[in-house]
Amino acid sequence: MSTASGHTPPRALLFDVFGTCVDWRTSIARQAAALGSRYGLDEIAWDAFADAWRARYQPQMNTVRSGMREWATLDVLHRESLDDVLAEFGVDLRPDDRDALTLAWHRLDPWPDTVAGLGRLRHRFIVAPASNGHIALQVNLARHAGLTWDAILGAEIAHAYKPDPHVYLRSVAALGLDPGQVMMVAAHNGDLHAAARCGLQVAFVARPREYGPGQATDLVADPGIDIAVSDFGALATALSA
Amino acid sequence: MSTASGHTPPRALLFDVFGTCVDWRTSIARQAAALGSRYGLDEIAWDAFADAWRARYQPQMNTVRSGMREWATLDVLHRESLDDVLAEFGVDLRPDDRDALTLAWHRLDPWPDTVAGLGRLRHRFIVAPASNGHIALQVNLARHAGLTWDAILGAEIAHAYKPDPHVYLRSVAALGLDPGQVMMVAAHNGDLHAAARCGLQVAFVARPREYGPGQATDLVADPGIDIAVSDFGALATALSA
Repeated sequence: MSTASGHTPPRALLFDVFGTCVDWRTSIARQAAALGSRYGLDEIAWDAFADAWRARYQPQMNTVRSGMREWATLDVLHRESLDDVLAEFGVDLRPDDRDALTLAWHRLDPWPDTVAGLGRLRHRFIVAPASNGHIALQVNLARHAGLTWDAILGAEIAHAYKPDPHVYLRSVAALGLDPGQVMMVAAHNGDLHAAARCGLQVAFVARPREYGPGQATDLVADPGIDIAVSDFGALATALSA
Repeated sequence: MSTASGHTPPRALLFDVFGTCVDWRTSIARQAAALGSRYGLDEIAWDAFADAWRARYQPQMNTVRSGMREWATLDVLHRESLDDVLAEFGVDLRPDDRDALTLAWHRLDPWPDTVAGLGRLRHRFIVAPASNGHIALQVNLARHAGLTWDAILGAEIAHAYKPDPHVYLRSVAALGLDPGQVMMVAAHNGDLHAAARCGLQVAFVARPREYGPGQATDLVADPGIDIAVSDFGALATALSA
């Protein structure tokens, strides 16, 4: 923990999930490789494939954020972008396998510290995801990864995507709390700045390998972040949980 | 278990909460009595007080169901009806104590079989409340009663009150499932009939003391209910969980 915030302790913690709680990159690469091997596609750089799929994520959500399209779940967005990334890698899969691979985002493994740290935090605080993943994805992901939440909040109940302030504020309101009583936890400074602008307390958990060995962004917390830690265990300790 | 349904096994179970998972009557009576004793009000029949408060519940929700008023949470409805029921019983409480007593609905004790049975069911099925209680209430109630849910569904995500079909259908859709893949569990035949009309499988759990020793309704399952059991343990056994 790098600093004390001077805030009163939060009542609830909201969590970013992709990258913060779970390691999407190696989980997607592994599942894509397993499917690819059934097509004899063992030469593909599946880590790069995962990166390329994820790289389409923000531009796609921007079409919702801008109002260009109605809110749609990540299953819809991931399925659309999968066709593009498969074409980029010169891979052809049957439609049913494309549908199945889209659901790989429901089966992401936790970072090694996530389950134990979250368990400690839940003893003291209400815990819920405030992710851009929809409810069905978060339910399946939590059961796969062994995460126990008190509720599934985030994009679907707001019909908006972070960093739209509605996502944070709707999630806080669903808990019957004020923004200052809630702490957003994420591995991404941009997510935390957006939450802080809504009045939430903010905690940064470093995930320096989220994007693989060459990661260059979000290696440390920006100035002004209330708490900065290296894993969920350290967050629990910092919050006396 | 009274009968086999012939359906394929459900993927998820949705639960009514008030009366089905928790014993609202004795929990409300006890908390009201504890508050009343600080006013020297030891002569009040607090069981009857709980019944009178609950009796205002359906008429109030009808004002939302009919479109007469916008959707409002049970905290709002319970707070309004508390003033009426206190007047009926000739009890005067300070406004802050009225606000505090309203939150007694967030602190209801489970029936003796609920926690263990729900734990068994969660091993095999996605479990979530589809209650008329809002998210904050259900989160607080689950933490008080020791219930572990995969998500909080029901009235708030539909902005409607059961038996409005939107509550069942929005909850099913949030799980990414079809109605026939989901089973509604309740101690109330009316709730189950409404769910069945939406295509859900339905299970009746008898709670013959929900309304106290003189209960005359919902003592047994109506004809056509898929499964009828006496407690959550029997439901887990009936569903091979």
